[in-house]
Amino acid sequence: MERQFTDKERSYVEPKITLVGAGPGDPDLISVKGVKALKIADVIIYDALVDEALLDYVPKEATRVYVGNPSGDENFSQSTVNQLMVDYALNFGHVVRLKGGDLFVFGRGYEELEYAASYSIETEIIPGISSAISVPGLQGIPVTHKGDSDGLWILCGTNEKGHINTELINAASSKATVVVLLGYDQLHDIVNIYQSIGKGRLPAAVIQNGSMKNEKIAVGIVNTIEEIVEEEGIDNSGPVLLVFGQTVAHHHRFCSILNFLEGDHY
Amino acid sequence: MERQFTDKERSYVEPKITLVGAGPGDPDLISVKGVKALKIADVIIYDALVDEALLDYVPKEATRVYVGNPSGDENFSQSTVNQLMVDYALNFGHVVRLKGGDLFVFGRGYEELEYAASYSIETEIIPGISSAISVPGLQGIPVTHKGDSDGLWILCGTNEKGHINTELINAASSKATVVVLLGYDQLHDIVNIYQSIGKGRLPAAVIQNGSMKNEKIAVGIVNTIEEIVEEEGIDNSGPVLLVFGQTVAHHHRFCSILNFLEGDHY
Repeated sequence: MERQFTDKERSYVEPKITLVGAGPGDPDLISVKGVKALKIADVIIYDALVDEALLDYVPKEATRVYVGNPSGDENFSQSTVNQLMVDYALNFGHVVRLKGGDLFVFGRGYEELEYAASYSIETEIIPGISSAISVPGLQGIPVTHKGDSDGLWILCGTNEKGHINTELINAASSKATVVVLLGYDQLHDIVNIYQSIGKGRLPAAVIQNGSMKNEKIAVGIVNTIEEIVEEEGIDNSGPVLLVFGQTVAHHHRFCSILNFLEGDHY
Repeated sequence: MERQFTDKERSYVEPKITLVGAGPGDPDLISVKGVKALKIADVIIYDALVDEALLDYVPKEATRVYVGNPSGDENFSQSTVNQLMVDYALNFGHVVRLKGGDLFVFGRGYEELEYAASYSIETEIIPGISSAISVPGLQGIPVTHKGDSDGLWILCGTNEKGHINTELINAASSKATVVVLLGYDQLHDIVNIYQSIGKGRLPAAVIQNGSMKNEKIAVGIVNTIEEIVEEEGIDNSGPVLLVFGQTVAHHHRFCSILNFLEGDHY
């Protein structure tokens, strides 16, 4: 991790950190502004959620720094990434920190901004397309739709201690479409929450690797969704998103699924 | 509104409708994929929320159709827009429907898709950056932040009948950051809701024309936000977004505002 800088490299540069949200996965879903930032990067710091095709925008002479899986790789904790960002900015100039997603919905973007600010380094924010909204949308599941949903509640599967997020109980009781990020391991518990309040027949979907070539989707109702997730071979090897709400019924597979459901399931 | 087509124009074309989310306002926040669609449009249908700079991507020979303010212009109801989209696709080929925002959070994107599907016209979805997340983020207000917020609840100010959305009461009671779109006229009622449950001191912000050159922001707490909105000259002439939650305290103006607040306000 530790990198030694030569005297030449340490010559004065104007440090700047630009945080760029790369979007849900499809590399063409980055913004024009994000591409413009990549083209003037001295250093790019990117993680496993980012499609490497985006590195083609970066100048050849720029330094490329890979920082692993943001939630799973112990070698690259948030504090390590923060420190790398600042070190590279102070020594090389313009660091683009390219992150999967939108930056701010459980993206820890603000933590990185705060750290850069503590070194008085100029920062810029270029938001990305949020998976929470676009991934269901691309599948034909609108997160809000007239008559079906009064809003959208986006939550994380767990609280800071790694236990199930108890706000999920309130979310399940609300009229909002509920999108759960980082919730694959809590699917069974969340299904139990919905069933315990009599919402076992609510439409539900689970999407893995949304907007990417290896995308998988399970569409069903609360009572059947775990079984369908297994049938579709969805696992935790790529980003998984859960959607609960009446708007899921708009997915083209929903009707045919209902026809196959047996009475005791539905 | 009615347009007559010549025989030549009626020669066979492959109809297609691509829905593109233009993002919160800054024209550079459109996606690369959105730009690629604009470049191969035969017709572009756009509304008042879209920056006209985006029309520069459209081929010179393409037809440009302006459909006014989506929520305020009676000449261009949703059904009129739907019909225009389909008519132009059947007669001219590839219609790009460019909409402000992300398409699916109160964007009525699904209604347009459904209508196109009812004519068996091929559709494509290219999501945009959601104002609900990016506009606070660009202002240094993260919609989620470790320790401050368990999630994000996005609501509309009114229900379908134009009355205040009663789910706002549940939202105010939750631990989520609450973002209200299309809620300028309900600000007073929403402030009353928060005050009635003892949350008058919760940080709050109101942002008009987010990400655009004429952006305005009011930052305060529930008890003072209406006064600050007036001081900052925020009105309903451009898109307005309300944010309620502890994460608003991260805005750089928040501390200085607290210093000026008098005891009876705070």
